[in-house]
Amino acid sequence: MAPGSRLRGVLSPAVTPFRSDLSPDPERYVRHCRWLLAHGCSGLAVFGTNSEANSLSADERMSLLEQLIQAGVPAERLMPGTGCCALSDSVRLTAHAVSCGCAGVLMLPPFYYKDVTEEGLYRSYSEVVERVADSRLKLYLYHIPPVSHVGIPLTLIERLLKAYPGTLAGIKDSSGDWNNTQSLLQTFSRSGFDVFAGSEVFLLANMRGGGAGCITATGNVSPGPIDALYRAWNTADADRQQSAVSASRARFQKYPMIAALKAAIAHWSGDAGWATVRPPLTELSASQARSLVEELTASGFDMPGLREAPRA
Amino acid sequence: MAPGSRLRGVLSPAVTPFRSDLSPDPERYVRHCRWLLAHGCSGLAVFGTNSEANSLSADERMSLLEQLIQAGVPAERLMPGTGCCALSDSVRLTAHAVSCGCAGVLMLPPFYYKDVTEEGLYRSYSEVVERVADSRLKLYLYHIPPVSHVGIPLTLIERLLKAYPGTLAGIKDSSGDWNNTQSLLQTFSRSGFDVFAGSEVFLLANMRGGGAGCITATGNVSPGPIDALYRAWNTADADRQQSAVSASRARFQKYPMIAALKAAIAHWSGDAGWATVRPPLTELSASQARSLVEELTASGFDMPGLREAPRA
Repeated sequence: MAPGSRLRGVLSPAVTPFRSDLSPDPERYVRHCRWLLAHGCSGLAVFGTNSEANSLSADERMSLLEQLIQAGVPAERLMPGTGCCALSDSVRLTAHAVSCGCAGVLMLPPFYYKDVTEEGLYRSYSEVVERVADSRLKLYLYHIPPVSHVGIPLTLIERLLKAYPGTLAGIKDSSGDWNNTQSLLQTFSRSGFDVFAGSEVFLLANMRGGGAGCITATGNVSPGPIDALYRAWNTADADRQQSAVSASRARFQKYPMIAALKAAIAHWSGDAGWATVRPPLTELSASQARSLVEELTASGFDMPGLREAPRA
Repeated sequence: MAPGSRLRGVLSPAVTPFRSDLSPDPERYVRHCRWLLAHGCSGLAVFGTNSEANSLSADERMSLLEQLIQAGVPAERLMPGTGCCALSDSVRLTAHAVSCGCAGVLMLPPFYYKDVTEEGLYRSYSEVVERVADSRLKLYLYHIPPVSHVGIPLTLIERLLKAYPGTLAGIKDSSGDWNNTQSLLQTFSRSGFDVFAGSEVFLLANMRGGGAGCITATGNVSPGPIDALYRAWNTADADRQQSAVSASRARFQKYPMIAALKAAIAHWSGDAGWATVRPPLTELSASQARSLVEELTASGFDMPGLREAPRA
């Protein structure tokens, strides 16, 4: 990918492995990220919701990002999450990601205080842009009201696009509300504003509407089939592929998503340590993990090459 | 107050002043905290919700705490907020507060991930206690579901009290639901578990039920009258005093609370810079600030000695 070009396609919020003492594990992390890029992900939205990024300190995130890049994962494939509750943390993480050469950043709004004004959200983003003050910054907004309880209205995007046209690059819409994604596409996609669906369930509809791809939790385990759909979106086979990837996602959604992703990786990599999550999350019970693996196996699910993926 | 004794009475989540560049202002901070302790607060729940603590980085909080103590504010009067989304941040802030000699810490549960299990919340708290590993730690739980959207059920408290009887010291109940406070009092107050009401509206009821006091936003501006009620709770005048402090609080509640507290401090201190808030919050408009001050003045509200409070 040419430097400066925009990420498109299937991005995965790479899950973050922890050692048994709950410290982040860079060795497993690098290995998983390499596998994702080799098996269908065009980019990695590291430090997303499904990465347990909100359970990591700013220092832990910066250290993992540096280790990933030092291990040879190209920075132009990375879109780290940098939106925190504290303005000072968001500025620090965003400046760091830009200095590392990352393709963009995916920014949650500050999410502790609720019912804040649109002006307050505007200032939150504009202060980061102004303080980072780097023309390389590509800012993607992260709209996930079911978790953050603080959303990003269209009128805010309009104002930010007007103020920072070269910086505001797109959005991940994890509202789960197709009407909202459709409004984003209709209102902004002709302004060079890239709309990513928040899950592969809306990937085909998003591509038909002029979107840029999807950033999806299950990209951690099924990058190949989701990427195949992305590439085939304007072919006759697209609807069949969409049904298949949606059905595959549904098998994970019966369980808490992050724990289920890690249980699948633990099983298909043969590395039981992968199941570890940080509090406040809890891993699947043994019987849940067994049921998940049985259902996935019966459906033909596989993570090809994961067991053999070279250790860092 | 004797070292090792528990905080009781009226605690204020001291508001955090910012300079015009939005950096925390230790000079104004120390001055305000001294005024609070001299005018009715028995302690300061620094870095609470109303302190905009969630808009501060861990480093900013630790630096302010150190500056406060260096300026002579007694650590045994302080109950800093140390609960963050990231386990690593909560451990770091809690260990720091204990090493500074603080009376206790007030801990939010991790609040980004929603619908987490009670086991996950238990681990969140127990990992902090185990990692800090200091018998001086006095842990107060912070239950504020209207903002955090992650609450602390009674069954979790029961489990934590059993595991850490010498450490688990109490709770601030900001649910706004008196039935919950009453259940806490009935279930735990005989175990040496101190229940603080989350606002002075429930102060009298809380004291009658065996509670320890209140930790309240408006303690920033009305510490004297609230402390007077605390001291008079078992006298014939208590109900009249309760009505008066509740009416005073209601004048602030017509506006966004934090901006209103800062507008009042700006006016009564004669220091306009106090009105500054950090994004995502916004200050009151000029007309809102004018109305607030007019209504407060008409009601006889005052912050005695604030204008003359010695600068640090």
